[in-house]
Amino acid sequence: MSGSIDFEQIAAVGWVTISHPGKFNAMSRAMWRALRSVFEAAQASPGLRCVVVRGRDGHFCAGGDISEYTAFRFEEASLRTFHEDEVWGALQAMLACDVPIIAQIEGHCMGAGVEIASCCDIRVASQSARFGAPIARLGFPMAPREAALVTRELGAMTARQMLLEAAVFTASEMATRGFLSRVLVDDRVGQDVHDTATRVASLAPQAARLNKQTLRALNAGDGNDLLLSSAINSVADVLRAPYAYASTDEHREGVMAFIDKRQPRF
Amino acid sequence: MSGSIDFEQIAAVGWVTISHPGKFNAMSRAMWRALRSVFEAAQASPGLRCVVVRGRDGHFCAGGDISEYTAFRFEEASLRTFHEDEVWGALQAMLACDVPIIAQIEGHCMGAGVEIASCCDIRVASQSARFGAPIARLGFPMAPREAALVTRELGAMTARQMLLEAAVFTASEMATRGFLSRVLVDDRVGQDVHDTATRVASLAPQAARLNKQTLRALNAGDGNDLLLSSAINSVADVLRAPYAYASTDEHREGVMAFIDKRQPRF
Amino acid sequence: MSGSIDFEQIAAVGWVTISHPGKFNAMSRAMWRALRSVFEAAQASPGLRCVVVRGRDGHFCAGGDISEYTAFRFEEASLRTFHEDEVWGALQAMLACDVPIIAQIEGHCMGAGVEIASCCDIRVASQSARFGAPIARLGFPMAPREAALVTRELGAMTARQMLLEAAVFTASEMATRGFLSRVLVDDRVGQDVHDTATRVASLAPQAARLNKQTLRALNAGDGNDLLLSSAINSVADVLRAPYAYASTDEHREGVMAFIDKRQPRF
Repeated sequence: MSGSIDFEQIAAVGWVTISHPGKFNAMSRAMWRALRSVFEAAQASPGLRCVVVRGRDGHFCAGGDISEYTAFRFEEASLRTFHEDEVWGALQAMLACDVPIIAQIEGHCMGAGVEIASCCDIRVASQSARFGAPIARLGFPMAPREAALVTRELGAMTARQMLLEAAVFTASEMATRGFLSRVLVDDRVGQDVHDTATRVASLAPQAARLNKQTLRALNAGDGNDLLLSSAINSVADVLRAPYAYASTDEHREGVMAFIDKRQPRF
Repeated sequence: MSGSIDFEQIAAVGWVTISHPGKFNAMSRAMWRALRSVFEAAQASPGLRCVVVRGRDGHFCAGGDISEYTAFRFEEASLRTFHEDEVWGALQAMLACDVPIIAQIEGHCMGAGVEIASCCDIRVASQSARFGAPIARLGFPMAPREAALVTRELGAMTARQMLLEAAVFTASEMATRGFLSRVLVDDRVGQDVHDTATRVASLAPQAARLNKQTLRALNAGDGNDLLLSSAINSVADVLRAPYAYASTDEHREGVMAFIDKRQPRF
Repeated sequence: MSGSIDFEQIAAVGWVTISHPGKFNAMSRAMWRALRSVFEAAQASPGLRCVVVRGRDGHFCAGGDISEYTAFRFEEASLRTFHEDEVWGALQAMLACDVPIIAQIEGHCMGAGVEIASCCDIRVASQSARFGAPIARLGFPMAPREAALVTRELGAMTARQMLLEAAVFTASEMATRGFLSRVLVDDRVGQDVHDTATRVASLAPQAARLNKQTLRALNAGDGNDLLLSSAINSVADVLRAPYAYASTDEHREGVMAFIDKRQPRF
């Protein structure tokens, strides 16, 4: 049992649920692959007018499933496959979806959760939601395409605080910083998202798809690898070998300390 | 009588008034052409140091003049002419103006109003002003150059909410989202704009023109078609045929339902 | 005595102090050159994990040292050398630094102060700090690379208000506008910055450097002249001769009026 991505369509609205019981819906590799499949199917579904992404049991997504990390993170090739094929494959499928996507964000929204939320058009959060990407505690940097995505959506200041300071923010702070469409008291979030999805689904569906295609084109690409085209074409060594850190002591120390439930020593 | 754009120069300040009585200053095609002429004249006027744009009778601009839409919107060529020549011609003339532009925003600031405000450097709004671009109710998307402009000024999140959710925002919300320079109680807006225009006009005029030219160059273009150059060079079909939706049922239904004062059925 | 940039390393944290007693730490030409040297040394120092930039005696930096301006500003070649070699040399060294940089901002943060703060990753300010770049009173525009930098960090709206309206903002306003990481009551700023620097220094140092390299690459360049590459390649005359205003009456009037302690007449 390594979690699941559940999908249900009700009228013209598709409901995507991130589910990993006992792990605050942390994303396993199987879940990343399933997330891609769900959005590829959504994109191909002509009757769909709105998609909602939410997490099971009061949390959105707490990050990656760290219990899987020792199996692939410490070798450059397998680390690249994870980030560029599995994670980015799913995020790209979300970015390439022409149907408006609403994020319903409650509880933990960390790391992978921030990345998934960054692919949603409208973000509704509960007051008690918490946001961050404290991977500096785990000894590794954010992969380039993922960093490009979250920096664009969070703003550079918030991205730097999450990555360099391991900062965690409240929903209220994230609204001020422009990441959230609105923040509601916890027991109103579900109703607001339901009403918003119904309203979005009642509006002109072809216009919505054309607007999403236009807004995507403004980001200089089709949600595919063009997102980082200028960076990839630039001279920084980090982008020629962004996964060369895989086998370093620092990376191993960060991940193993977490698994051993002790403080890392960097 | 299809509205007018009035211009008056007092000392070094030019006052542009959007005027369409009975229609909350909705922009007719004649008004778009007049707006272009006014700003081309302003740009060529050496004594001008500041321009203010405001609306007549307590509203900025409620959008486009929908009563004209059936005459040109449902045919691709005439729709393209409207967006790329008339609307963009006016917005480009504003963007190309080297003199600082202040928007005085009261009441309705919707659709075309948001686009015109997006070409202004400093935006002062009254507390009761309202902002949106609910064209998804009218069955059509935003034209690409206009979408590029408002997304840059509104931020992507707010642009998506306006276009995909048909959201309408208060002045206070728009200040938090970074679109407004300041918000004032309604009866103080006129005095604040007058004082701001006087202050701007007292500062070094050559420095202001050089700063505007520099800031415009940072947007990778001269306010002309370079604004969307990366998007236009990209692969998205939407940008190869952005007006092919002209004759679709959805578009016609949205516009006709509005004119017939009934709910559209999409 | 024309001010100094002081550096002290304590454990893994480097403390940079902008110091120009009696002038609120205004940057002299010697200080720009020293700032560059300090950051080039920091970048080459393997044991460093965090840098703090602060000002002496309760102010960050009040701008440039205007008493030096008559010696070089009114001739195009020497003005270019000042902006492109001395000022940009220092700012580029800060942008090229792979170690996280924290700004501790108290009191005046004007002109050069805003530019220096714009090169810092995390910005902590005291409630009484004030921000602006009122060079329109001095009769000159912002140099292109500096305008690109501050526009990116301040947002275009705030940059326009500072440059076109000579607006000055409180710390609270600058936090809302997304420029500051947090604002604290005045006597808590020093402790917060110390704690933040200690926390940053305790996190994975290689991951921090890789994250900074990635985030820098996203800005389409290495902190060098690529920052303005699209603008420089564009057609605007201002960027072909950005310092041609050096010998104009307006420029001389602005600087001389300030030195003579009188209102300029533009």
